[in-house]
Amino acid sequence: MTEREPPHGVEAGAAHLRRTESGVEAHMVDVSEKPATRRSALARALVEFPAGVLQRLREGTGPKGPVEEMARAAGVLAAKRTGELVPLCHPLGLDHVEVTFHPRGVDALEIRCSARCTGKTGVEMEALVGASIAALTVYDMAKGLDKGIRIGVVELLEKSGGKSGTWRAAAFDG
Amino acid sequence: MTEREPPHGVEAGAAHLRRTESGVEAHMVDVSEKPATRRSALARALVEFPAGVLQRLREGTGPKGPVEEMARAAGVLAAKRTGELVPLCHPLGLDHVEVTFHPRGVDALEIRCSARCTGKTGVEMEALVGASIAALTVYDMAKGLDKGIRIGVVELLEKSGGKSGTWRAAAFDG
Amino acid sequence: MTEREPPHGVEAGAAHLRRTESGVEAHMVDVSEKPATRRSALARALVEFPAGVLQRLREGTGPKGPVEEMARAAGVLAAKRTGELVPLCHPLGLDHVEVTFHPRGVDALEIRCSARCTGKTGVEMEALVGASIAALTVYDMAKGLDKGIRIGVVELLEKSGGKSGTWRAAAFDG
Amino acid sequence: MTEREPPHGVEAGAAHLRRTESGVEAHMVDVSEKPATRRSALARALVEFPAGVLQRLREGTGPKGPVEEMARAAGVLAAKRTGELVPLCHPLGLDHVEVTFHPRGVDALEIRCSARCTGKTGVEMEALVGASIAALTVYDMAKGLDKGIRIGVVELLEKSGGKSGTWRAAAFDG
Amino acid sequence: MTEREPPHGVEAGAAHLRRTESGVEAHMVDVSEKPATRRSALARALVEFPAGVLQRLREGTGPKGPVEEMARAAGVLAAKRTGELVPLCHPLGLDHVEVTFHPRGVDALEIRCSARCTGKTGVEMEALVGASIAALTVYDMAKGLDKGIRIGVVELLEKSGGKSGTWRAAAFDG
Amino acid sequence: MTEREPPHGVEAGAAHLRRTESGVEAHMVDVSEKPATRRSALARALVEFPAGVLQRLREGTGPKGPVEEMARAAGVLAAKRTGELVPLCHPLGLDHVEVTFHPRGVDALEIRCSARCTGKTGVEMEALVGASIAALTVYDMAKGLDKGIRIGVVELLEKSGGKSGTWRAAAFDG
Repeated sequence: MTEREPPHGVEAGAAHLRRTESGVEAHMVDVSEKPATRRSALARALVEFPAGVLQRLREGTGPKGPVEEMARAAGVLAAKRTGELVPLCHPLGLDHVEVTFHPRGVDALEIRCSARCTGKTGVEMEALVGASIAALTVYDMAKGLDKGIRIGVVELLEKSGGKSGTWRAAAFDG
Repeated sequence: MTEREPPHGVEAGAAHLRRTESGVEAHMVDVSEKPATRRSALARALVEFPAGVLQRLREGTGPKGPVEEMARAAGVLAAKRTGELVPLCHPLGLDHVEVTFHPRGVDALEIRCSARCTGKTGVEMEALVGASIAALTVYDMAKGLDKGIRIGVVELLEKSGGKSGTWRAAAFDG
Repeated sequence: MTEREPPHGVEAGAAHLRRTESGVEAHMVDVSEKPATRRSALARALVEFPAGVLQRLREGTGPKGPVEEMARAAGVLAAKRTGELVPLCHPLGLDHVEVTFHPRGVDALEIRCSARCTGKTGVEMEALVGASIAALTVYDMAKGLDKGIRIGVVELLEKSGGKSGTWRAAAFDG
Repeated sequence: MTEREPPHGVEAGAAHLRRTESGVEAHMVDVSEKPATRRSALARALVEFPAGVLQRLREGTGPKGPVEEMARAAGVLAAKRTGELVPLCHPLGLDHVEVTFHPRGVDALEIRCSARCTGKTGVEMEALVGASIAALTVYDMAKGLDKGIRIGVVELLEKSGGKSGTWRAAAFDG
Repeated sequence: MTEREPPHGVEAGAAHLRRTESGVEAHMVDVSEKPATRRSALARALVEFPAGVLQRLREGTGPKGPVEEMARAAGVLAAKRTGELVPLCHPLGLDHVEVTFHPRGVDALEIRCSARCTGKTGVEMEALVGASIAALTVYDMAKGLDKGIRIGVVELLEKSGGKSGTWRAAAFDG
Repeated sequence: MTEREPPHGVEAGAAHLRRTESGVEAHMVDVSEKPATRRSALARALVEFPAGVLQRLREGTGPKGPVEEMARAAGVLAAKRTGELVPLCHPLGLDHVEVTFHPRGVDALEIRCSARCTGKTGVEMEALVGASIAALTVYDMAKGLDKGIRIGVVELLEKSGGKSGTWRAAAFDG
């Protein structure tokens, strides 16, 4: 039966895609045979503000004000629901999710989300979803100040655990 | 009773933030008095691939292959759940959500999400959430090919309806 | 811009599918222009039991026992979440959802779910999702008795409202 | 067909319960015929702490610290999901949800949640769910300090709108 | 205290039902004492079309077109949320979920969903929910073509793992 | 990097709060290093009715009528979704959730929820959320009888497992 055959990626690495006699299909990777190991991932999203807007936002609230706590709550909750949002992600328990805020110059706010689990698959997607939704929550609270706010980048900074070991983005110095 | 007073932003535009005697709080905007009007918003997320990776991804699947349909499903579903993800967003019905894909050169894929409703608040957040989750779904399916894939930008392109009328990003020509 | 063009079905009736220059895509129907009218739909799912199993299940519980109330709760809750489960369904408020149980002979239990709304789209999917999940909940509670239980059919019985008016399944006498 | 008959409560007021030939069933109230009007509700949950614990909790965080913003986010998000949690509640849009915090003496924290909609049904449940989940979120963050923390009461303070007009709890002075 | 007593089914096999002094109650099975083992299940749902409708649907889209990918996304996402939909199902991690499509003659499409986990309970419900929601998603996209489409059957084909070992439906030849 | 440092509570016990150079933040506790052990918790919520109301509610339904089954379904489902509702709770699998009903005199109904898991964190929050939502579901079905119904208390009765061993509320005799 075709759906029992081991998946084979269209090419090495693209394990979600499988060539069948009638085309290519996207599938969840089967991790039945993989051992549960400790995994972690760290991602960031950078919220960029037109000149002066971030300062005006922070003036009202201080460095650990309601904007950050509200965004933290949203990011942590969303990271835990990654498997509901991204179709081919495995649903998994998490040992830790953390969302932190880091000013980048006077007009940008970097949001980092780290995730950890003891499981059969990596947690990159959990970190990326947490950072994205936290950033969009900041956007939502600030959008009345200026429509030119945007998310400048969403990317993985670091991951560890699993067969491929530790990986770190070229520009990331920890 | 303090929670009945009309909200007044810390400054004009930041309607989500309210100064109280003990600090600043973040609140949902009360739209009880606003009329229901037709609203739309269009947002984009740009997935950037290291050289050649997008081509390798598409070779297996063709221009409207499983990657795009899977991401479209994820983006549309997420846009509909925006109120569950972003704390201060109003829950609302939607008349339309659409996710489309646009190659940008040989190494980038732009994902657009448009949302429409007849309601009391704008649908920017729905469009942004839909574009973001669709982009992360593409990332998830392609991440095995190269860890250097990233979301280059997430931003609003256009919104219409409501008191502030139509707004269009400076760089957006429709 | 292609995503602004009015959708045109691949053929009359298949409004979810749209032909583009690069293939066919599945999209949510845009109901911005449609008026909100009263809509209703009635669907059924038939749970079929091997001989004697339904009787054994009911002996312990009586005709309105815990199996039915548990399934009713599940069906009503699922109908309300249809837009989260079926990608191209519009999220909408509902005026009413009801799940009822009707023995069909000695070895089958018909579960009906009716849904009503005042809105721009029909509620067939809500009725079908409610009936399906209620039936699967009965299955879940009874599966320890016999593995041969199955859902014999899930189908729409009746719908009313909207441009196409009232429709009734050929075999359905109300 | 029995499921089409208008529901009639087992006794006046208990509109969710309906007597049938085989017993009593619990059903969602059909609001198809009701007009959409403006509704509001205000509920409270009282978190009671053993002597000194609340003070210790607040010392680290100040009066508008992370505990309150985290609980506010949780309460607002939960209020919006009431229809997913309480089976016979209608799913509905909300114009406003607000969670506020009020010290009651030195060892208790009252959490109020108000909800507003323009719709066919009241929003008591939304206010009660929002207050409850906000209170449980405070409990979760403080439970490491003392296991004797508890929610002392969860109750409706006021509701307005709909056929029954405005109601106010006897002990509530606004 | 009654809720601590080990559950005993009303009769052997109906482990979800428990007789108490005041009647019969439906409960989740306690699996605390069970070992985690590898489990799998395979279920199917058959979508039946009036003559010619499936062909018209496929003409526009080809054998692996957008209808199937959209339904696959919906089925996989729903299978992962089974514990949110079916009240007495245990929430559990999954090692794999797969949805595949198999034409059955010219007027029927069989949808299979397989699920795998390493856990204390079987995954039949996950497979059945995934197949059901995928089938309803096909229905949703095709219902504009003909109102006579229906789900002909939803059933378990095979399960393995756990105390009861491997089971296979009589009519299923793998 | 600050977000990698081990969390240290503002004071012993308040492990969710962490002091940083710019204030205090609320974070999920990192349980990566903790072993998975068997855990259980039991919580209760007490629904208090004005004189005679509970009797009127029960007259129509009997001691195990639809009100209790509907509330049981809601409580069990909500307990399983605790990690989606309470921001800093870990998402976890559960071995068992049970909701039971216990009359307290003629005008009060105690609802108990017990939860069990084999994991790295306690399940107090799951038990408390399950009891709360079950109580609110009873409230919802009875509120038409009398607006004076309220939840009198929500509290933990007992927990076991983990480093702190078994704890029992002073007034709880099992």
